[in-house]
Amino acid sequence: MIKLSNFPFKTLKTRPKVSDNISTSILLQAWFIRQTMAWVYSYTTLWQRVIENIKKITREELNNYGCYETYMPWLSPREIWDKTWRWDIEDYFKVDAHGDKQYRLNPTHEEIVVPLMQDFIGSYKDSETCVYQIKDKYRNEKRAKSWLLRWRDFIMKDAYSFHLTNEGFEEYYEWMKKIYMSIFERLWLWKDTYITVADGWVFTDKYSHEFQTVLPIWEDTIYIDDTTWESFNQEVAPSKIWIENISDIEMFEKQDIEHDSSIVWVEALEKLLGVPVIKTTKTLFFVADDNRFVVASLRGDYEVNTIKLRQIVWCNSLLMASEEMVKKYIWTNIWFAWIINLPDSVELYIDDSVEWMTNFETWTNRDNHHSINVNFWRDLTIPDRFYDFKDAKIWDKNPSTWIIYRVEKASEVWNIFPLETKYTKPFWMKFTDENNTEQDVIMWCYGIGISRLMWVIAEYYMTENGIAWPESVAPADYYIIVIWEENLEKANEMAIKLEQEWKSVILDDRMSKKIGFGQKAGDSELFWIPNRVVISPKTVEQWGYELTIRGKESQLIKF
Amino acid sequence: MIKLSNFPFKTLKTRPKVSDNISTSILLQAWFIRQTMAWVYSYTTLWQRVIENIKKITREELNNYGCYETYMPWLSPREIWDKTWRWDIEDYFKVDAHGDKQYRLNPTHEEIVVPLMQDFIGSYKDSETCVYQIKDKYRNEKRAKSWLLRWRDFIMKDAYSFHLTNEGFEEYYEWMKKIYMSIFERLWLWKDTYITVADGWVFTDKYSHEFQTVLPIWEDTIYIDDTTWESFNQEVAPSKIWIENISDIEMFEKQDIEHDSSIVWVEALEKLLGVPVIKTTKTLFFVADDNRFVVASLRGDYEVNTIKLRQIVWCNSLLMASEEMVKKYIWTNIWFAWIINLPDSVELYIDDSVEWMTNFETWTNRDNHHSINVNFWRDLTIPDRFYDFKDAKIWDKNPSTWIIYRVEKASEVWNIFPLETKYTKPFWMKFTDENNTEQDVIMWCYGIGISRLMWVIAEYYMTENGIAWPESVAPADYYIIVIWEENLEKANEMAIKLEQEWKSVILDDRMSKKIGFGQKAGDSELFWIPNRVVISPKTVEQWGYELTIRGKESQLIKF
Repeated sequence: MIKLSNFPFKTLKTRPKVSDNISTSILLQAWFIRQTMAWVYSYTTLWQRVIENIKKITREELNNYGCYETYMPWLSPREIWDKTWRWDIEDYFKVDAHGDKQYRLNPTHEEIVVPLMQDFIGSYKDSETCVYQIKDKYRNEKRAKSWLLRWRDFIMKDAYSFHLTNEGFEEYYEWMKKIYMSIFERLWLWKDTYITVADGWVFTDKYSHEFQTVLPIWEDTIYIDDTTWESFNQEVAPSKIWIENISDIEMFEKQDIEHDSSIVWVEALEKLLGVPVIKTTKTLFFVADDNRFVVASLRGDYEVNTIKLRQIVWCNSLLMASEEMVKKYIWTNIWFAWIINLPDSVELYIDDSVEWMTNFETWTNRDNHHSINVNFWRDLTIPDRFYDFKDAKIWDKNPSTWIIYRVEKASEVWNIFPLETKYTKPFWMKFTDENNTEQDVIMWCYGIGISRLMWVIAEYYMTENGIAWPESVAPADYYIIVIWEENLEKANEMAIKLEQEWKSVILDDRMSKKIGFGQKAGDSELFWIPNRVVISPKTVEQWGYELTIRGKESQLIKF
Repeated sequence: MIKLSNFPFKTLKTRPKVSDNISTSILLQAWFIRQTMAWVYSYTTLWQRVIENIKKITREELNNYGCYETYMPWLSPREIWDKTWRWDIEDYFKVDAHGDKQYRLNPTHEEIVVPLMQDFIGSYKDSETCVYQIKDKYRNEKRAKSWLLRWRDFIMKDAYSFHLTNEGFEEYYEWMKKIYMSIFERLWLWKDTYITVADGWVFTDKYSHEFQTVLPIWEDTIYIDDTTWESFNQEVAPSKIWIENISDIEMFEKQDIEHDSSIVWVEALEKLLGVPVIKTTKTLFFVADDNRFVVASLRGDYEVNTIKLRQIVWCNSLLMASEEMVKKYIWTNIWFAWIINLPDSVELYIDDSVEWMTNFETWTNRDNHHSINVNFWRDLTIPDRFYDFKDAKIWDKNPSTWIIYRVEKASEVWNIFPLETKYTKPFWMKFTDENNTEQDVIMWCYGIGISRLMWVIAEYYMTENGIAWPESVAPADYYIIVIWEENLEKANEMAIKLEQEWKSVILDDRMSKKIGFGQKAGDSELFWIPNRVVISPKTVEQWGYELTIRGKESQLIKF
């Protein structure tokens, strides 16, 4: 039981102003948190309880489904990071130790968990398994993007599963989704949390998955199809443009226009040539990591999404081609280059935003020359296939359902990565299959941002007065206000009784004259504990107390 | 419930050999731990449960008594460490961050907790308080002294209390001792754990206190008085020598002996002059940090304890004087210097080991000259006072009770430091007293080594077969062995029922032919869960199971 008469942390009368969001101001006012340095906070007792409650729920659900908790170390030697070529990643901290040694301050534990688990999976008879830990982690962040999203230290649940076949994993993954559903249900976040497809970051045809909780102020943008519950991170969202009915549009005569060299960007085209932006096209040039030269063309108001394009071109990375490279490969000035007259040695990809365009503008591969009223069929060969490599925009449709996306800001609270054999190969983690052949073990990894979740819940359940904590994570179940000293004993009795029923209690037994009912009621709202009890001579006279369940009418309950 | 059929970690058939102790070998055999690098271990699920149990007990007792848990950050900026001159301490890690910044990887949190708490203690009306955290910590250890004592990362509970007066603290301290007593009682360590006086490390007349658990293989040596339950770390143990009845000893004639210069140390005296070591004296010379010159003399078989001597001389530090300084201050060669003919400018301290010596040997302040059969009264003035600044030895007595100490090897599991105003002063943490005068807040700090405790418990409760975990921290309450597949359902039912009663269960449901009753029974002993249950067709026939409570006879219990 927390007795406020003796509790060191006090609330503030006024709300400190924090530039970019209100929930932080409330947390500062309620003294849940205090800043130590930029992006580094201390948490006081009530906030610490919220963290422990989130950890407890996460742990219970994972254990229930047969995941096994472990404790992996903070420091590790360089050798194991050299195996995976990750020693010199800038965002991972190193620490200098005695004897000119350096250790890694582990930001993630693939390099630790693989050697830990490889003694246990050696044969097709061994069972697939999943281990996890809940741990504070570090990143050497260049800049904190927002007040609460990118911290240098944060709490993570990281789980690693090991599989013998892809089918084994697929089955497991459905099971893992159920675990996560249970966790988010218990955290009261399920309703607005979406399983979102995101970039996999590895050379694979699989995307990674994220759980994104919709919140207006956050960093990610997700594209939701409400008919299928599908959701995509903007970085990978497939998209179809919204097109008008084009059957009756007349083909105008094609014109070549010469102009001065100041007209390069689509905005200038619109302004000076009077061509609306949706009638313009643009073409960009890339070099793949295997040296293929890639030409990508799309409607003028879209941007190339290199993550989507990379999957189409099927390469590890795409770099913008330099002016010199464009000259060398397609014999023209980069500013006026377009898709006609391309040599066979380059690969051309046209986005489907161009597919139904009519009477549109193009460059012509001649300096300071444009064409307008260009049309497929008549002026250009239609390519065998149009692709989708544009950045999705608002009003775009989901290509598989033709439903217009709902676009929302959201925060990533969970992710899953298809690590496959990326870490098991370098550590030689193999098993012998039924034909006595050695195979690489397949590995996946699943994260939950515990500290991120705390902030998401705070922001999601924020009201004007305080944060209306979900019962499952609230810093206490009951807030008991005592008005007169003579009722203290009664209140104390009640608190003890509640604790015996496994309820946690904050007892507001502050008896100083300066702290009246008003402040007590205000603090109870700022902390916003689900159940508020008031014990006063009036209620005691009626042999009871006043109970206010959050959001409901007060009622008198008999002791 | 842990089902071993699906549990990733297996036990080893043979016990790995670890150079310096057996409990580590058992933990490695049971796959509780695995080494990642020197002095860095991963913990698997069962060991992780032991940690969580210890944390839970610690938390419950502290919360119960009104200490408040917080979460303080890992990283902190240089500025706050500059205030206390601790930025450049070698054993504390720094990490390099972007923008040529360096952060401290916090090894302890005084510099964090003072700014956190100073907003809440400003007046004599504010209540004294104690906050704590349970956190992993780091030290840049030069070398690990023993396999488990000095690690680079470890788990600590660190509490900090803030007081307005010393009396306030004294009262609080008695209360804190009770909390710790409850914790150690619940961990089943109370019987052999002693509150031990140790060096305070700060310039104060107060020593610090440690809780030391007696264990034969550990690093500290403690001196226990079994009549008073007093205990002292060797570094500060007061001591009286064991002396024979000297009333009837005849004074021999004093002799001066000249000899060659090879005789310097007491061993040579004993060998070449035939003087037994307990009849020799030795004298050492120190310079205090305030430049006083200190002469300290004691019986030849004792060593000077500079921590004790520092308290007597009342200075911050004592350095051994160089040969040149001895020459300068007392006009003689360091090798032959003794306590006679000292100039007034030096301070002389004689240890009480010399007090009752008769017919003893001394140097004479002349090169290559000794005296033997020296006696107080006759040959020397008796000083006003003898002191106690010798390192205590076995057979020494407690000066306050004259009881011979019991000397034991022990491990420090808790300590308390009188930080007083060391950290509150530089951060200007003050309160206004009743006379409206500003006073420094008084601060103490209390640590419990959570990871240290795990190892102490393992070592303390180690047997030949496994570690007989105390019920309060055991990785499970029940280990259920199923012998035949047909009884699996019954066993599962029983496990679920036990879990509903808040008992934790390991279900040994491994049905492979290779894993017979022998291995199951062996593993149950290696994990050594307090209660073992065997369910077999034979017991089921009698409508029951076999229960073996550790250390007791097996019995058949009806379902």
